[in-house]
Amino acid sequence: MAKDRVYNFSAGPGALPLSVLERAASEMTNYGGTGMSVMEMSHRSKAFIKIFDDTKSKFRSILSVPEDYEILFLQGGASSQFSMVPLNLISKTGKASYAVTGNFSNLAMKEAKKFGEISIAATSEATGHDRIPCQSELNVDKDASYFYYCSNNTIYGTEWQYVPETGTTLVCDMSSNILSKPVDVSKYGIIFAGAQKNMAPAGLTVVIIRKDLAGNELPYTPLMMNYKTMIDKDSMYNTPPCYNIYMLGLVLDWLMEQGGVEGMEKIKSVKAGVLYDAIDNSRLFKAHAQPGSRSDMNVTFRTESAELDKKFIAEATEAGFVNVKGHRLTEGMRASVYNAVPMEAAEKLADFIREFDKNN
Amino acid sequence: MAKDRVYNFSAGPGALPLSVLERAASEMTNYGGTGMSVMEMSHRSKAFIKIFDDTKSKFRSILSVPEDYEILFLQGGASSQFSMVPLNLISKTGKASYAVTGNFSNLAMKEAKKFGEISIAATSEATGHDRIPCQSELNVDKDASYFYYCSNNTIYGTEWQYVPETGTTLVCDMSSNILSKPVDVSKYGIIFAGAQKNMAPAGLTVVIIRKDLAGNELPYTPLMMNYKTMIDKDSMYNTPPCYNIYMLGLVLDWLMEQGGVEGMEKIKSVKAGVLYDAIDNSRLFKAHAQPGSRSDMNVTFRTESAELDKKFIAEATEAGFVNVKGHRLTEGMRASVYNAVPMEAAEKLADFIREFDKNN
Repeated sequence: MAKDRVYNFSAGPGALPLSVLERAASEMTNYGGTGMSVMEMSHRSKAFIKIFDDTKSKFRSILSVPEDYEILFLQGGASSQFSMVPLNLISKTGKASYAVTGNFSNLAMKEAKKFGEISIAATSEATGHDRIPCQSELNVDKDASYFYYCSNNTIYGTEWQYVPETGTTLVCDMSSNILSKPVDVSKYGIIFAGAQKNMAPAGLTVVIIRKDLAGNELPYTPLMMNYKTMIDKDSMYNTPPCYNIYMLGLVLDWLMEQGGVEGMEKIKSVKAGVLYDAIDNSRLFKAHAQPGSRSDMNVTFRTESAELDKKFIAEATEAGFVNVKGHRLTEGMRASVYNAVPMEAAEKLADFIREFDKNN
Repeated sequence: MAKDRVYNFSAGPGALPLSVLERAASEMTNYGGTGMSVMEMSHRSKAFIKIFDDTKSKFRSILSVPEDYEILFLQGGASSQFSMVPLNLISKTGKASYAVTGNFSNLAMKEAKKFGEISIAATSEATGHDRIPCQSELNVDKDASYFYYCSNNTIYGTEWQYVPETGTTLVCDMSSNILSKPVDVSKYGIIFAGAQKNMAPAGLTVVIIRKDLAGNELPYTPLMMNYKTMIDKDSMYNTPPCYNIYMLGLVLDWLMEQGGVEGMEKIKSVKAGVLYDAIDNSRLFKAHAQPGSRSDMNVTFRTESAELDKKFIAEATEAGFVNVKGHRLTEGMRASVYNAVPMEAAEKLADFIREFDKNN
């Protein structure tokens, strides 16, 4: 563990690479000889435009985003996209299909009902969202303007291991697993992600949109929720969240040093695997998610007893493993091992799980 | 000038106090012994909730916000409020009145037309937005659900010197002069402000709303644009822009050291006055805004010649006075002297104006 730092398993906002934070601190009062902080720069200044353009082009390169897609740096979190997606896409047929595999896809589905006719293509609610439906279970409305899913369920610790084939425009909330592995962007219409788990501090939402999808918004679409405006203005209709974009740029530099998303893909399954192994081989602990649906980002687990869970959380926290308490919807424990969580943190927590299992 | 720092007259994002930036840098990798950055904290963690609550209560105290008003920390900038205000308030009568005194009130007025019947209570367009209409010029629709104005026009450099009496709910965009002077909040229904001029880094929008106004939103209001939801969830329906809120807290600490908004009010007119004096007493320069309408935040001025303006801007930049170029809508020059711009910066720029006037 780095001096004075804890092992941070927060589900989001999540850990950031220490080297990124150190660099941000060192540039705080004078960025690159400009005599000011990035926070103090006009978003129209040469210095900031360079940060903006560089960050966007690094992102495009790392995720191999095709040229007919725009990368937008917006605000409002994934929850704003819950409205923005139907407001901009549903006019085609007035209908859309949603897969409900957790809390956030459920909220997205409910929000979309304000704007059109929504059908549920699949739901994992009956088994406490412990699995991802397989391709053959998806019942997508043939008139759907788009099919919507959330690729990783932060709360339940499940993750889609395949890209659904649906015959319509694919929309995906990748908030909690973006940049953890390569993605074939060309299969999607829209990918969006809140930054605060795998990318940057909270307050930035990255949207990847196939440009031809924009321009069909409903008439009462708020101006800041119009993809067309954001594409036309290159995310600068108004002042964007400048410092978050700068931080994303630093994180992307760090990511490239780790071998990009290909490097991350190799690391992530080992890192999560260390924890799932400790859990599966214990007497006391049980993973929430079924094998084949397990998330490499959020490892959810529990004992048979709420009392023992509480003891585990208290002792883990005491030992410097912070934010391992599960979400109130699932209870139990959750260890989020996003890109910036070091392998060492997962290994030490696995040791701690084994030790606790022996002593209780 | 502090070592390695420039005099930054940016219209926004604007200057921040150096001591605030230094403190943020010093706490970047380990905030208050938590072993993590504020950027890495769960927004539901004890440490962050304390930052959030403290910041809100400092804000309430500094601006004397009455208890029947909520203070919201949102995203999306003032431009999102352009939609949020009519979406939430216009249902009362379906009508609203706007004063158009610059670019942003004009955009707000146009956006509101999506949601109801909008009348223009006054406009300063005929004279290039060089003045603020007086009370007797305001022609407010008696059926208006609310009256909307922008208290300081960043681009044109004009500022309302009075609070309009309109007989309806008052809504005010204070993005560029909030916290520069005391405000009688009880006269308003809603006050909002993007943070990036006088408060914090871009990406945070502060809304002060009389709580009884919420709950009357139009049926297609996006969930993140519903004031009621934001009030009920204390701005945490989803992850708020945590780091910006932390920075706002640091800026508010600094503001209290300067004597709060009462202290700022004394300083600001002297600071802007130094510049207006130099301009008014010059041969070459002319202020854009008429006396009685002049902004203490954004001092707009020009010479008779675009060529000479260009020369002034180039030489000023060379001398370390950064971001003095006017907005493309007005051209000429603009020196923004927000709270965090030190008196010394205004004095030195005034010296430079006098020197330039003598030599050209």
